[in-house]
Amino acid sequence: MLSAEIIAIGSELLTPEKTDTNSLWLTGKLNEIGIEVKLKTIVGDDSGRLEETVKDAVQRSDVVITTGGLGPTEDDITRTVTAKAIGRELVFHEDIVENLRVRFRAWGREMPEINKRQAYVIEDALILPNPNGSAVGMAVRIGEKFLIVLPEPPRENQPMFETHIFPLLKEKAGEIVFKKRILKVSGLGESAIDEAIAPIYSAYKNVSTSILFNKSEVEVHLTASGRTDTEADALNEEIAAKIVETLGIAVFSTDGEEMEEVVGKLLAKNSKTLAVAESCTGGLISQRLTDIAGSSQYFIEGVVAYANEAKTDALDVSPEIIARYGAVSAETAEAMAKGMRQRAKTDYSISITGIAGPTGGTPEKPVGTIFIGYSDAQLTKSFKIVLPGDRYLIRWRSSQAALDYLRRQILKK
Amino acid sequence: MLSAEIIAIGSELLTPEKTDTNSLWLTGKLNEIGIEVKLKTIVGDDSGRLEETVKDAVQRSDVVITTGGLGPTEDDITRTVTAKAIGRELVFHEDIVENLRVRFRAWGREMPEINKRQAYVIEDALILPNPNGSAVGMAVRIGEKFLIVLPEPPRENQPMFETHIFPLLKEKAGEIVFKKRILKVSGLGESAIDEAIAPIYSAYKNVSTSILFNKSEVEVHLTASGRTDTEADALNEEIAAKIVETLGIAVFSTDGEEMEEVVGKLLAKNSKTLAVAESCTGGLISQRLTDIAGSSQYFIEGVVAYANEAKTDALDVSPEIIARYGAVSAETAEAMAKGMRQRAKTDYSISITGIAGPTGGTPEKPVGTIFIGYSDAQLTKSFKIVLPGDRYLIRWRSSQAALDYLRRQILKK
Repeated sequence: MLSAEIIAIGSELLTPEKTDTNSLWLTGKLNEIGIEVKLKTIVGDDSGRLEETVKDAVQRSDVVITTGGLGPTEDDITRTVTAKAIGRELVFHEDIVENLRVRFRAWGREMPEINKRQAYVIEDALILPNPNGSAVGMAVRIGEKFLIVLPEPPRENQPMFETHIFPLLKEKAGEIVFKKRILKVSGLGESAIDEAIAPIYSAYKNVSTSILFNKSEVEVHLTASGRTDTEADALNEEIAAKIVETLGIAVFSTDGEEMEEVVGKLLAKNSKTLAVAESCTGGLISQRLTDIAGSSQYFIEGVVAYANEAKTDALDVSPEIIARYGAVSAETAEAMAKGMRQRAKTDYSISITGIAGPTGGTPEKPVGTIFIGYSDAQLTKSFKIVLPGDRYLIRWRSSQAALDYLRRQILKK
Repeated sequence: MLSAEIIAIGSELLTPEKTDTNSLWLTGKLNEIGIEVKLKTIVGDDSGRLEETVKDAVQRSDVVITTGGLGPTEDDITRTVTAKAIGRELVFHEDIVENLRVRFRAWGREMPEINKRQAYVIEDALILPNPNGSAVGMAVRIGEKFLIVLPEPPRENQPMFETHIFPLLKEKAGEIVFKKRILKVSGLGESAIDEAIAPIYSAYKNVSTSILFNKSEVEVHLTASGRTDTEADALNEEIAAKIVETLGIAVFSTDGEEMEEVVGKLLAKNSKTLAVAESCTGGLISQRLTDIAGSSQYFIEGVVAYANEAKTDALDVSPEIIARYGAVSAETAEAMAKGMRQRAKTDYSISITGIAGPTGGTPEKPVGTIFIGYSDAQLTKSFKIVLPGDRYLIRWRSSQAALDYLRRQILKK
C-alpha cells in the first residue's frame, strides 16, 4: 500500500479560528485508490520549517501533496521553498503569463505585474492548469515518488486533483480500487451491532469494516477492494444487504444519507405530508427537514410552541392537560401532535416537548427528559426518553429520535 | 516570542471524516501568553513517524504539546515513543495504579490489568493529574524547552492545561500578556470597515488587528499586549470603544457574541417578547434563538409556514395577497409578520419569505431573493435583499439579516 503525506501551508491555518480542512477531501480520494495518509503537517509562511517538512515528507512517503501558498505575494513561499527542498530550479513560463493576461482582460482588468510570480514552475514538473484561479499547480516525479503542489481553495484544487492527479496516482497505485459505503443505524449500541454483524463482515477478507458512534447514531463503514469499481461496489452491496437483513429496520441509511433525507424520501415516495410541533428543540426538526431541497413537496408547516400559551393557542392543547400533567408530559406531547396534524391537515405529524437544560430539571423530570409524540388519521401516541449530553446534544438527539420514530411508523404501515 | 508545535496523535485523525481540533483551543491559550504556534503535525499510531516528529519538534521549538495516544491499549504508543524520542526512560508509578483502582471501584468496577500501562511516566516528568479520565499527563523540561503530553478528550486536556501548564508557560513566556477581543459588524464590507477604522488601530503599536469575513458578517480581531491582563484588556476596550463610535449601530457584538445572543439580551433587558414566522429558512431563526439557554424568557412562538395554506391558516395572510403579489413578496412578508405578532400577542415579530434554491428562481425573482418583515404595535414594514451563495448559505445569511433587522429596530426605539 502506498503512503501519502499532506502539507497545508498558510499562517492563517495556525490561528485559534481556522485549521486545514483540505486534507479531509484529499484523504477520501487517496483512500479510494488504496493510498494511506500517514502524516499531515500544517505550517505557516516559514521557509525553514516548510523546507524541512517537505524534505522529510519526500523521504518518508510515496506521495506528498501540498496545498496553499501559491498566491502572487511575497508571503506565498511554496514555489520557492518546495523547489529548494527537492534541489530543483524554478523555470519561468512565458505562456503561463500570457494565459493570465488573457484571463485578467476577460475579467475587465489588466494583470498586475506581481502575478508574474505565478509563472515560475519547478523544472520538469507537470503543469496543472487551474480553470478556477490564477495559480497553476505542479506534479513532480522524484524517482518513484510524487510531489504534488496545489493551491488552497477547494473549488480550485479539487477539480485539478480529479482531472490530473487522480488518474496518475490510480495508475501508480496499481489495479486495486477501494470503494467506501456508510450504513447508519439507530436505536442500537456499538457493541450490540458489532456482535450481530461481526459474523457477516469477518467472512470477507477484501472488506475492512469499522463501527463508529456519531452523536446520535452508529455508523458502519465498509471499504471494499476489487479490481474494478464495479467489483468493489458489488462487494459492499452484498455485505450491506446482509447487514440490513440482520439488523432490519434499525438500519435507516444504506448510503450515508442523513435521517432528514431518509424521512423526506419516504414521505415523497408515498405522497404523504408532514407537520411538526416543537418545544424544546425550538425549530431544529423543521430546519433539518427543510434543509433538503424539494422539501416543500411534503413539509407543510412547523410550529415552535415555546410558551405554554403558544401550545394552547397554536396547537389546541387544552390548558387542563398542561395544568394536570405538565408541559413536559406524554399527554402534552400527544395533544401537540394531534393539534398540529389537525390544524395543518397533513397525513402525519410529530411533536417534541422536553427539558434541554442546562436548567429546568427536577428529580422526577431531570434535564434530558423528552416526550416525543406522533399522530396520523388512525392513531396518536408518544414515548419518553432520557437523553445524556449538553443542551446542544440533547436538542440534536431529540430531533433525531423524533425523525426516527416517524420513519419507523411510516415503515410499519 | 516563544515558539510552539502541537502534535495530534491517533490514526482516526488521518481519516476523511475526522481531524485534529484540539489544537485550536490550545493555540488560543498559547497566543494569550504570547507563544506562537509555528507548526502542527497529525500522526497515526506509527512509531517511526511519531518519534521523528517529536525529535524534530523538540529541536525546532520552545514548547511542544502532544495530544492523544495515552489510552491503555497497545495502539496507545505516545508514552513509549515520546520517552524514546527524547532519550529518557519510562518509570512505573505504583501510586498512579492505586489511584486508578480507587476510581474504578467508585464506578463500580474492578480496574482491568491493562490499565497498569497508564502508570508509566517519563523520568523526571511533572505528573499532571486528570480528574476526568484515567490517563495522567506529563510535562518534561528539556533544558530550556518543554515537552507536554496530554490525553485526547478536550474535557480532560483543557482543565489539565489550564491548571498545570498555563501558569508554568505564562511564567516562562515572561511579563507580556496578550488578550484577544472580537468585534462583529453587519451591513458593511471588509474594505469599507478597514478604511474607516485603520486610522484608529494603526495609532496603537501594542495591538495587532485583523479583519475577516465570516459567512455573513465581518469580524475585527484585536490582540492587545500589556504587562498585565488589566492593561491589555484596557487597551482592547479603548480601541473597541473608538471603533463603535466610528461604525455605530453596524457593530452588533463587542465581545464575540453571536447575533442570536445579542438579540436575546436586548429583548431580555427590555422585557420584550418575540415571535418568528419563517418560510424559506424553515425554522432556522427559531432554532438559533432557542439555542440560547434562557430564551424561553422572550421567545414565545415560531411558525414555519412552508406551504401557502400554512401562511393563510396559521398566519392569517389573505389568499388574495398571495395570489396578487406572490408568496415571495414584500406584501406577504409584512402580512406574515403582522399575523404572527397578533396571534402570539408578542411585542415584536419578524418574518422571512424567499427563494433559497437551488430551484424555484425566476428572472424577476432569482434564487437568493428574500423579503424580511418586521412588526410591532405601531408599525409593520419589510425590506428585500438578494443574497449570493448555495442553499445553506442563503438560509444562513437570511436568518442573520432578519435578526439584524430586528436588532436595529429595537435599538432605534
